[in-house]
Amino acid sequence: MARKASIIGGGVIGGGWAARFLLNGWDVSVFDTDPEAERKIGEVIANARRSLPALYDKALPAEGRLSFHTDLAEAVSGADWVQESVPERLDLKHRVLGALCEAAPATAVIGSSTSGFKPSELNEKGARAVVAHPFNPVYLLPLVELVGAASETDRAAEILRSIGMFPLIVRKEIDAHIADRLLEAVWRESLWLVKDGVATTAEIDEAIRMGFGLRWAQMGLFETYRIAGGEAGMKHFMAQFGPCLQWPWTKLMDVPEFNDDLVDLIAGQSDAQSGHLSIRELERLRDDNLVGMMRALRKSGSGAGGVLKAHEATFAEPKGATLPVTVERQVPTSWTDYNGHMNETHYLEAGAQATDRFMEIIGADAAYVAAGRSYFTVESHVRFLDEVKAGERLRVTTQVLGGEGKKMHLFHRLERGDGALAATVETLLLHMDLTARRSSEPAPDIAAKLAEFTAAHAGLPRPEGAGRHVGQRA
Amino acid sequence: MARKASIIGGGVIGGGWAARFLLNGWDVSVFDTDPEAERKIGEVIANARRSLPALYDKALPAEGRLSFHTDLAEAVSGADWVQESVPERLDLKHRVLGALCEAAPATAVIGSSTSGFKPSELNEKGARAVVAHPFNPVYLLPLVELVGAASETDRAAEILRSIGMFPLIVRKEIDAHIADRLLEAVWRESLWLVKDGVATTAEIDEAIRMGFGLRWAQMGLFETYRIAGGEAGMKHFMAQFGPCLQWPWTKLMDVPEFNDDLVDLIAGQSDAQSGHLSIRELERLRDDNLVGMMRALRKSGSGAGGVLKAHEATFAEPKGATLPVTVERQVPTSWTDYNGHMNETHYLEAGAQATDRFMEIIGADAAYVAAGRSYFTVESHVRFLDEVKAGERLRVTTQVLGGEGKKMHLFHRLERGDGALAATVETLLLHMDLTARRSSEPAPDIAAKLAEFTAAHAGLPRPEGAGRHVGQRA
Repeated sequence: MARKASIIGGGVIGGGWAARFLLNGWDVSVFDTDPEAERKIGEVIANARRSLPALYDKALPAEGRLSFHTDLAEAVSGADWVQESVPERLDLKHRVLGALCEAAPATAVIGSSTSGFKPSELNEKGARAVVAHPFNPVYLLPLVELVGAASETDRAAEILRSIGMFPLIVRKEIDAHIADRLLEAVWRESLWLVKDGVATTAEIDEAIRMGFGLRWAQMGLFETYRIAGGEAGMKHFMAQFGPCLQWPWTKLMDVPEFNDDLVDLIAGQSDAQSGHLSIRELERLRDDNLVGMMRALRKSGSGAGGVLKAHEATFAEPKGATLPVTVERQVPTSWTDYNGHMNETHYLEAGAQATDRFMEIIGADAAYVAAGRSYFTVESHVRFLDEVKAGERLRVTTQVLGGEGKKMHLFHRLERGDGALAATVETLLLHMDLTARRSSEPAPDIAAKLAEFTAAHAGLPRPEGAGRHVGQRA
Repeated sequence: MARKASIIGGGVIGGGWAARFLLNGWDVSVFDTDPEAERKIGEVIANARRSLPALYDKALPAEGRLSFHTDLAEAVSGADWVQESVPERLDLKHRVLGALCEAAPATAVIGSSTSGFKPSELNEKGARAVVAHPFNPVYLLPLVELVGAASETDRAAEILRSIGMFPLIVRKEIDAHIADRLLEAVWRESLWLVKDGVATTAEIDEAIRMGFGLRWAQMGLFETYRIAGGEAGMKHFMAQFGPCLQWPWTKLMDVPEFNDDLVDLIAGQSDAQSGHLSIRELERLRDDNLVGMMRALRKSGSGAGGVLKAHEATFAEPKGATLPVTVERQVPTSWTDYNGHMNETHYLEAGAQATDRFMEIIGADAAYVAAGRSYFTVESHVRFLDEVKAGERLRVTTQVLGGEGKKMHLFHRLERGDGALAATVETLLLHMDLTARRSSEPAPDIAAKLAEFTAAHAGLPRPEGAGRHVGQRA
């Protein structure tokens, strides 16, 4: 049975939580008295549907069920996780968390999205909430700061990992946890730079994203500076940069007066910088960029890339009736091109993923490759039969056309979510000795498993399009 | 004739400047009295050679010449750009900049890599330097803060753009320019978090790279927050987050005492976090991640991705004698797979790039596609003939096998830098009406240009491997 998450309070953060749980197969109930809640959350989930699955090279589990409630007890009934995301007012948090602790199952995790309050403050009226502070967009960014009793945070962390997030357990409770302290420091200094006319909002954004922003997306502050210390290491870096703290560079000690003039100045500059795009367009741009960068980090496994790989490894392998299903996935926007559809390269990429999966199935897996043997593709033929758009599901089945000796001859069919045949990829591989870089016989167990498939598929009709050359008449 | 940059002071920053100029075709002379300078700069350039060209889908210009000097006048003779990167001591900067202004051509830009000093301080003894403050690794990160007289910074900005950088002209000189003010704020707050035992260096790094670091690599602070304001916009966000500045969250007002205990604490935690990797390994990890993320940003053109595309558009198109050269590029690490060589997908990607370039050559370019017509690939055949490793050059030539009516039949040969034939891609395309999503006749000028190539190539021998089907005997 699907697990259930109750989301208390819609809005951008609540909607992000709803999407994260829902797309990971949880049932989600939303409690919000705002009549616009369903529309607002629907828009966040729509954004999530076009980006979250695109992070992975396998399909996420089937979505859970989504429901909306105006009765709190009904919303939290049977919940495994209850997440409060109401506005940042302590009296309101006390009231809501009190009601939740009464109505929710005793076994449910009660999480609060608060960015500022400590658990001791949240719970001073007897609630048992943990801080589970996420980052926008919640459906893409892995970070959740967890603060609370160790017994609660350990359990919460396990659940968060199971929905692809990165729980950071904050061991000592402090105002604003960790990340927002750093953010506030930058925000405060940036307000001064704008107020003093040193830089505009656009110039500050360029100073960040053209430089240290790129560093921080993959390593953080300290690992980056460790490198800057060069061969002499972290101590050398500290010796160089430490004394600067004494210099009167920043205006951090002062708080800029937060008046209408300052708000108008910032809002006006922000309009000039980003006003040509609507918030929805900005969100989609942000999400496409995040997906692209996080997919890039899969390669090294750094930061968010490592979280993706670990999460994907928990997904169920798809199964087929007659032929093995070797790929089941969503098409990311980054796979599309100027013609508005999946680029030819990625038809072959899906085929190559199917080959990799089929190799795994017969035992020629990562360990086999690490031990010095593999298959190399020597020849492939692709028929592009139909267009595939970003966000569509793709399912690949694999038929073995031959598997004697060093040779493995495969035929992949790429089907769209609607069942249409989008492409076929016929491919011939040779078994290789990776040290000699020469063809060689596969290990006996691999050969035996491949022979089983070859025999099982020998009775199937030869697929249409197999053995074609380019330009051959039908 | 190649332009010349003189790099004054080796080290990580000087080496990064040397690499950036050199790989963009400039001659580079290095002045440094350290006997280790040549080795140190050589290592930085080696890093740059494996990463900078991998950002682009075209080949960079041929490298310039690199020379080392212990005579300042000799080093700067004939220079167009002189970059000072000596340690951050004002008296030393005065001495070096004074000597440079005397020895260098009057037409040369004199840039200083200083992170802290203002131009008015640098020039108080009569030098004419501009601040050109780069970010590590200088060969990959686009940002350079330019501070100085407008006549000088405009000229400098043009040169920086021509080597793929993003000059940010700082209009009002202030200590530490813009980016380092923000960095210092985060550094200062982070030191407190470590000192107070709230978080380790590793935890702070996770708080950054799993969350806001990913946001800041593509948008900055303000554009990100504009989105957070949701439909209600920037003013709404300000109203929410502004008052927090009054809260006693951060310890920004104090300076932590910078003693050996603090240095040991930070250095010890950093060792525990990153000590399993050498600085060289960390650098390569960082560079591969940067290349992957920056390549991902090419798609949307956000931030560094936009800089890459604009720079690449200035590269010369390769030319061939008999057949058009349709691709000339380096193979990025991200194109390789578990077998330690270029993955099959990217053989087809190079072929697809060749097709795109050939379409451009016959006039079926971006404007033609925008106007509603294009070519779609219907069938491709790839022979994988030899392995290609990361960092190798790849050159593709294109032969037209047929070009009548709606059809375009191409044969791409992928050659490695050493001249070996790595693959052939035979591909058949159909001309399409993008609105109807149906095949259609090409525009007359496109048809005419394609016919020219078809006729010119008709006399060439039919390429070996054309018309093959998968598994056909040789």
